[in-house]
Amino acid sequence: MSAKSSAPSAPPPPTMGRKLAAEVFGTFLLVLGGVGTAVFAANFPDAENNSLGVGFVGVALAFGLTVLVGIYAVGHISGGHFNPAVTLGAAVAGRIPWKDAPSYWVAQIIGGVLGSTVVYVIAVGGPDGFATNAVAGGFASNGFGEHSPGGFSLVSVLIAEIVLTAVFLFVILGATSNRAPAGFAGLAIGLTLTLIHLISIPISNTSVNPARSIAAAIYGGPDVLAQVWLFILAPLVGALIAGVAYRPLFEGRKP
Amino acid sequence: MSAKSSAPSAPPPPTMGRKLAAEVFGTFLLVLGGVGTAVFAANFPDAENNSLGVGFVGVALAFGLTVLVGIYAVGHISGGHFNPAVTLGAAVAGRIPWKDAPSYWVAQIIGGVLGSTVVYVIAVGGPDGFATNAVAGGFASNGFGEHSPGGFSLVSVLIAEIVLTAVFLFVILGATSNRAPAGFAGLAIGLTLTLIHLISIPISNTSVNPARSIAAAIYGGPDVLAQVWLFILAPLVGALIAGVAYRPLFEGRKP
Amino acid sequence: MSAKSSAPSAPPPPTMGRKLAAEVFGTFLLVLGGVGTAVFAANFPDAENNSLGVGFVGVALAFGLTVLVGIYAVGHISGGHFNPAVTLGAAVAGRIPWKDAPSYWVAQIIGGVLGSTVVYVIAVGGPDGFATNAVAGGFASNGFGEHSPGGFSLVSVLIAEIVLTAVFLFVILGATSNRAPAGFAGLAIGLTLTLIHLISIPISNTSVNPARSIAAAIYGGPDVLAQVWLFILAPLVGALIAGVAYRPLFEGRKP
Amino acid sequence: MSAKSSAPSAPPPPTMGRKLAAEVFGTFLLVLGGVGTAVFAANFPDAENNSLGVGFVGVALAFGLTVLVGIYAVGHISGGHFNPAVTLGAAVAGRIPWKDAPSYWVAQIIGGVLGSTVVYVIAVGGPDGFATNAVAGGFASNGFGEHSPGGFSLVSVLIAEIVLTAVFLFVILGATSNRAPAGFAGLAIGLTLTLIHLISIPISNTSVNPARSIAAAIYGGPDVLAQVWLFILAPLVGALIAGVAYRPLFEGRKP
Repeated sequence: MSAKSSAPSAPPPPTMGRKLAAEVFGTFLLVLGGVGTAVFAANFPDAENNSLGVGFVGVALAFGLTVLVGIYAVGHISGGHFNPAVTLGAAVAGRIPWKDAPSYWVAQIIGGVLGSTVVYVIAVGGPDGFATNAVAGGFASNGFGEHSPGGFSLVSVLIAEIVLTAVFLFVILGATSNRAPAGFAGLAIGLTLTLIHLISIPISNTSVNPARSIAAAIYGGPDVLAQVWLFILAPLVGALIAGVAYRPLFEGRKP
Repeated sequence: MSAKSSAPSAPPPPTMGRKLAAEVFGTFLLVLGGVGTAVFAANFPDAENNSLGVGFVGVALAFGLTVLVGIYAVGHISGGHFNPAVTLGAAVAGRIPWKDAPSYWVAQIIGGVLGSTVVYVIAVGGPDGFATNAVAGGFASNGFGEHSPGGFSLVSVLIAEIVLTAVFLFVILGATSNRAPAGFAGLAIGLTLTLIHLISIPISNTSVNPARSIAAAIYGGPDVLAQVWLFILAPLVGALIAGVAYRPLFEGRKP
Repeated sequence: MSAKSSAPSAPPPPTMGRKLAAEVFGTFLLVLGGVGTAVFAANFPDAENNSLGVGFVGVALAFGLTVLVGIYAVGHISGGHFNPAVTLGAAVAGRIPWKDAPSYWVAQIIGGVLGSTVVYVIAVGGPDGFATNAVAGGFASNGFGEHSPGGFSLVSVLIAEIVLTAVFLFVILGATSNRAPAGFAGLAIGLTLTLIHLISIPISNTSVNPARSIAAAIYGGPDVLAQVWLFILAPLVGALIAGVAYRPLFEGRKP
Repeated sequence: MSAKSSAPSAPPPPTMGRKLAAEVFGTFLLVLGGVGTAVFAANFPDAENNSLGVGFVGVALAFGLTVLVGIYAVGHISGGHFNPAVTLGAAVAGRIPWKDAPSYWVAQIIGGVLGSTVVYVIAVGGPDGFATNAVAGGFASNGFGEHSPGGFSLVSVLIAEIVLTAVFLFVILGATSNRAPAGFAGLAIGLTLTLIHLISIPISNTSVNPARSIAAAIYGGPDVLAQVWLFILAPLVGALIAGVAYRPLFEGRKP
């Protein structure tokens, strides 16, 4: 009952329960912030038809900021993944124990679905037809072919998602290495997600995160749900590639 | 009369007077910057009808930057709350003594009203009809139903404000915990406010801060003033929830 | 001829020559970046009349970034003022010796004029009529009344410039105090200038910096040059107020 | 086979192979991010003709973020140049050995071409005519005269590219000096590239980087390829000037 017996200056490491709470929170925030901005604010014409909406820049900023602030808020607890592909890459690269991965994945999916559910509930209280239109428009889901915002093919989307997730993991593994300047990793990782969205919202609406894709697709209707496999597969493949390649490319072979 | 008798290297802690000056300044800056940008710059069509205005992205950036820079400027004095809901959450979570809360609240409301007053005074010297139109448009007040920018219902606005304020407090309490990287809290907290605005300007014009809502509403006319209760209540409820839940969720039970 | 005689680990403080070079460089960059973005990029309609231009958000970002990066580049040499009002406020607050101020002011004006001259020279090689139109439009000068972008009166502009410069100085003096987190001052100060522009480009085209105003006005034609006095006076008054008020408000009376 | 014989706490310096991998990665990311955003996202009108595209602000942000995050990811390995002009300036200023420069240049060109190739491959899977139009539009290449986005002459483009690259190098050399705050260099350098783009996309589409210009030009068709010499020459001249001038201007004569 007393904490006096533990060392006074070294706090105990976070328990798995705390870590999962952190991953639920961070992924909730990621989907609430990113999908929420896409659904509520991307396109907002005013009476004189001047667009006040935040456009793709605002959505890109929102997704990146969720991760940036989430890492500074709870990254010291869980590592701040908020993304099953990041967890996979971190495990492959030896940064976290494999046994933690499955519970992280479950927490991330739960957090993401909570996030899109809050977005949906708020949308239901919007003006007439707002929620219906948001669902009909795919609810900010990822897609290829006719569900790609700019009409990009399955192959283009597959390449983009694999390459961009690999880039994301390379930055994460590099910026959190013990040679990189301490403290700046959250800034670098969050802004990488913004960068990834700047490039690829027109291509795939940008996933690089299966939890984000699942969370949006369950409200986006059967057509986009039928495409969600690609946004589970491609980010995981990209993360796997980066997780395997990081050490030989940038740290040299393990001694 | 001489400071020689105090320890030469350890400056005394700020007095309550200094803390309140810091809270007045920071909340003044928050309202001047955020409400000012909304009133003066959000919508600015030029002669050829190309919008040069900063839109919702600019307003979101402005609100977030006020808090970001305010924390680096005076956060070392008062903690940099600038928001009665933040003060409530910090008190509930045990970060500040309860006895400081009422004077912080008064300082924040005074600072906010000073900020909106400066905006109003400048607006009066605008082109014909500018100030009248700004007031008729609600003076960047928060609102629900017909006073929601996008026409969202009371229930949607209530959910959005409670959830987003809770998120704000979770980030604040996490980013200022002694395990988070030192120095980055101001960056994380300010950018969280930007993120919150990116999501919710269309929903409620974004409060998460009773002082900001009161400051705008007193110039926004009776209709928006009649709705200000929600933007006092909802942020305080959200902050209360986060203040209570933070430690059990993320730090474990108190020893 | 040998450096061996100086202490090996403590580099000598920068000479006044180095400091002035740093102030010339920083103010050159401020005007090149801020005025250059306003002249070249603020308004850029494409063939289909979609605006690709950066608008007021881009100009606000550009001005802020010049100061942010200038401080990290040469702030360790000169303090990174790049603005006669900042130098005044720093001297009043006791942060720099008064005897340094006049040479800083000269360096800042020289740097600013070099910056606007480069913008002008590039503009002359623009498409037919580009430079002529830029000059006719005031060359991104500050102004009031008919030369205010949004038509704001002399009084509004005076209030805005005094208040915003005072805010700028309060942030500068606070973020560079020895209690604020080390290293973040450049970030906070630069982003404060972005914030100030987000609010006040429509009001006065935003000065808060006499060197910036002089630099633009000498290419903006006699009408805007006749108004430049206000943009020398008001920022200096604002800086004076903040320089006098900072210590009593935020640090307590000097012992 | 055992690492036990090396000092336990001092990791060995990166090998040249690791450095070149880092430069390939960073320049790949710079072109993928910057050119990719320009090609896919700059202009994206929706059905109601509200532009959701990211415009020049988004492209400026994308280029800057690639360098910002690249430096935090792999800057501790190679220094994070990602640009032959930066390598030249660093060598001239004595920051890296001259013998490293040629291999850095080759790595940067390879990385850049890999980046534009990925953009091209994704574009081929776009909607009908997308890739053809992107190539016909120059594939985000740099240009002067009729290939300048805003129609600026060769002389204007030459001046802009020389001056802006010199500014870039002054910031790089200053922000990485041992008197500047540690850790912030990546932030300052990346945001300088954003600033440079805010000013000069209308002038030259912004190079300041021969590897970026070559990478785009090889997909941009013979007309823009015929202009690429300027975007190799001018950045190198600008970097040379800054590399020579940095120490006498800002550090004093070498002892």
